[in-house]
Amino acid sequence: MPAIGSRTLSTTPRAVPGASRNTRPTRATAPAKPPAPRPPRAAEPADVLVVGAGIVGAAIAWRAAAAGLTVTLLDPEPGDGATHAAAGMLAPAAESTPGEDAAAALHRAAADAWPAFAAELTAASGVDVGLRTSGTVLLAHDSGDRRTLHDDVARHRAAGLPTVDLDLEEAAGLAPFVGPLVTAAAHVGSDHQVDPRATHRALLAALDATGRATLVRASADRVTTVQGAVVGVVDDAGRAHRAHRTVLAAGVATTALAASLGAATAPLLPLRGVVGQTLRLQADPWLRLPTVLRGLVQGREVYVVPREPAEDGRYEIVVGATTEETPDDRRPRAGGTFALLRDARVLVPALDECVLLDVTQRARPTTPDLLPLVGESGVPGLLVAAGHHRNGVLHAPLTADAVVALLTGGTLPAVLVPADPRRFAPAPRPRRRPAPLAAAGLWASRDGAPAQR
Amino acid sequence: MPAIGSRTLSTTPRAVPGASRNTRPTRATAPAKPPAPRPPRAAEPADVLVVGAGIVGAAIAWRAAAAGLTVTLLDPEPGDGATHAAAGMLAPAAESTPGEDAAAALHRAAADAWPAFAAELTAASGVDVGLRTSGTVLLAHDSGDRRTLHDDVARHRAAGLPTVDLDLEEAAGLAPFVGPLVTAAAHVGSDHQVDPRATHRALLAALDATGRATLVRASADRVTTVQGAVVGVVDDAGRAHRAHRTVLAAGVATTALAASLGAATAPLLPLRGVVGQTLRLQADPWLRLPTVLRGLVQGREVYVVPREPAEDGRYEIVVGATTEETPDDRRPRAGGTFALLRDARVLVPALDECVLLDVTQRARPTTPDLLPLVGESGVPGLLVAAGHHRNGVLHAPLTADAVVALLTGGTLPAVLVPADPRRFAPAPRPRRRPAPLAAAGLWASRDGAPAQR
Repeated sequence: MPAIGSRTLSTTPRAVPGASRNTRPTRATAPAKPPAPRPPRAAEPADVLVVGAGIVGAAIAWRAAAAGLTVTLLDPEPGDGATHAAAGMLAPAAESTPGEDAAAALHRAAADAWPAFAAELTAASGVDVGLRTSGTVLLAHDSGDRRTLHDDVARHRAAGLPTVDLDLEEAAGLAPFVGPLVTAAAHVGSDHQVDPRATHRALLAALDATGRATLVRASADRVTTVQGAVVGVVDDAGRAHRAHRTVLAAGVATTALAASLGAATAPLLPLRGVVGQTLRLQADPWLRLPTVLRGLVQGREVYVVPREPAEDGRYEIVVGATTEETPDDRRPRAGGTFALLRDARVLVPALDECVLLDVTQRARPTTPDLLPLVGESGVPGLLVAAGHHRNGVLHAPLTADAVVALLTGGTLPAVLVPADPRRFAPAPRPRRRPAPLAAAGLWASRDGAPAQR
Repeated sequence: MPAIGSRTLSTTPRAVPGASRNTRPTRATAPAKPPAPRPPRAAEPADVLVVGAGIVGAAIAWRAAAAGLTVTLLDPEPGDGATHAAAGMLAPAAESTPGEDAAAALHRAAADAWPAFAAELTAASGVDVGLRTSGTVLLAHDSGDRRTLHDDVARHRAAGLPTVDLDLEEAAGLAPFVGPLVTAAAHVGSDHQVDPRATHRALLAALDATGRATLVRASADRVTTVQGAVVGVVDDAGRAHRAHRTVLAAGVATTALAASLGAATAPLLPLRGVVGQTLRLQADPWLRLPTVLRGLVQGREVYVVPREPAEDGRYEIVVGATTEETPDDRRPRAGGTFALLRDARVLVPALDECVLLDVTQRARPTTPDLLPLVGESGVPGLLVAAGHHRNGVLHAPLTADAVVALLTGGTLPAVLVPADPRRFAPAPRPRRRPAPLAAAGLWASRDGAPAQR
């Protein structure tokens, strides 16, 4: 069945309901560049179908198209998942937990990929993605928070990261509006920020400029195969989208899409949504806040991420994030908003004076071992790039380049081996010996080695 | 100049930008009633021009049209002022302050007018306005709050109001989810609620059904006169709207509109905006909250107003309100949202589980003596109905009937004499003896007698 309902790329990150329905695919807007090849006609398979246009899927689509592949990118509401809530911290140090060495190495590699990626993306799109490399100030409130802070500083330094203790006067120099209930501080030189919504806009613009991509605003319903190989998906209107390779980058929905292959074939990709709420505030210029703040307040984590000021000097601040093991529900709970404001105003009491612009709640796609799923699925023609939990923005460049390497005949970098999507596949087992934990996806490999199929 | 850009009535309470421009007036949709007279052609003066379609202006317009007058109602965004933020408490007891006897009598008269008004409005519009007469439970937190609560109960009882102390078990019976930090309670039998947004929708529908009214979505720019008598207004596009009588019900904007008559003629109508923020939450059915709660938490007032459940059992809760002497700014501050949530969850901790639907901030039009401005302005052809501070919803029926009485040859009820708009006019004064306080509108009559002009 030919794909219909597709449209040329748009830089609008939010879906316009109904706007894309029943229009025929047309050629992407020509960029101010040498003539690009036409996108494939609907009846021709694309080189790559990327399912999911969050920051990860959009980054894969752009890098694949920039590498010369024809791309179809499928999403009913591009960028309206976890990307829309994300604060955009690039925090390889602060996001690393004791004992999670594979994750720590992966976060560092992901952070290293960002500066070049941001520069190329801005050059390709003309959009400033808001990369700020002024580091992060860690703040602690009570005695337990101070203990955790000092442990973190020691761990960062042992790992060779440029983290240093600050006395409160030094902290006030870096973050002048820190409040009197903050009792300890440190500076993390490795942890920066980028604006995820701006990055997503840039990705769609850069993708459009390649002239090799089609964005289809539709939801994938199931994966289709021919002779055991994946050949694309069918969307929720019954339209087929065909490609030589299919990449599932659909966040939590990746699990159900993979399962649509049927129990005998489907790869086991255990993802659940971990719901998080972020707030967007608007600050007046007098509230100088030149760097990212991450605080521990009575054991609860909270962050305050200031964006670049607009021309009038006002700027946006992202406060986050709650962590709730609830069903994927985009309606923020009042208790979450309250808790974020309560803890954030311990760090910066003057946040009270900021305008509350927006409360956003989305689910983070999360695996049992907190490592992402990046690479071959084990089913011919099907790749996976999902499950980045709190770090989808951090990981998008590394993931995109790794997936495009696989699509163009290369291999995954070694640092991504622990993220092999096949690690949750049940091990071969004797007959009549059920392995219910593994079958339910509760077993998690933490040693970094993918499980044997 | 003939009025253009007007349109027939709409029940949409929010403005659709540009939707009403450049359309010619047409006949209002015929109600299922005997044929009504045509609305006046643009070139004919209406009997009444009401400037401002908040709950007060819309109520005046409906009652005037129902009394047989032709009406033009002018507002760029009907119902999007204080009406949009209001919780809709009809609280003659709780809104009365010691020593404010004129206000207390006015609040009681206003509350008495509501049941018949609501019944007529629902009959005329087919819209349920959400009048709930289950009373209000007062709650106190600390020792100071308890003292205030007990003083309030004594004052209500001295005024003959049906307020009774509750022990905490009785309070839990009326409001099962009240939290453990509440230490005293009372039931106020006189204080109820209505849904202001539903009431506003009902008013526009009922007005439409009269067939005698035209709603013009435009902003009044200045009042126009012929030989010293007001004959209407000119809107911000330069179009004239003419009427035999003009009623300013434009909230804070009333002051500037009156001043547009020029220093020699203009009535002094000192209104300022007192900004308030309200939150709208959505509760699941398990959170039983059958009555309005008003709390004092460390001296701060907070209320929790549950609406009627929808068919699925979920219902809206309004939490309010901040009181800020800041410029009229519709952008809510994070500190206000935080304070409302902090205090409301002392009353009902389970509010944490509710969805945060909406944060709304609007200015309450407020006079120096906190009494409204209702009646003749002192300039021929010009009446005023504004300045209802926290009680615009409570006062709308009484105010509407009083203004329509004046428009149809009657007089103001005695209880509204203290609200005479002429009370702020400077007293006659000897030459060369300036009276700067009075001229600046800072002098406030509190004895209930209007000042002599």
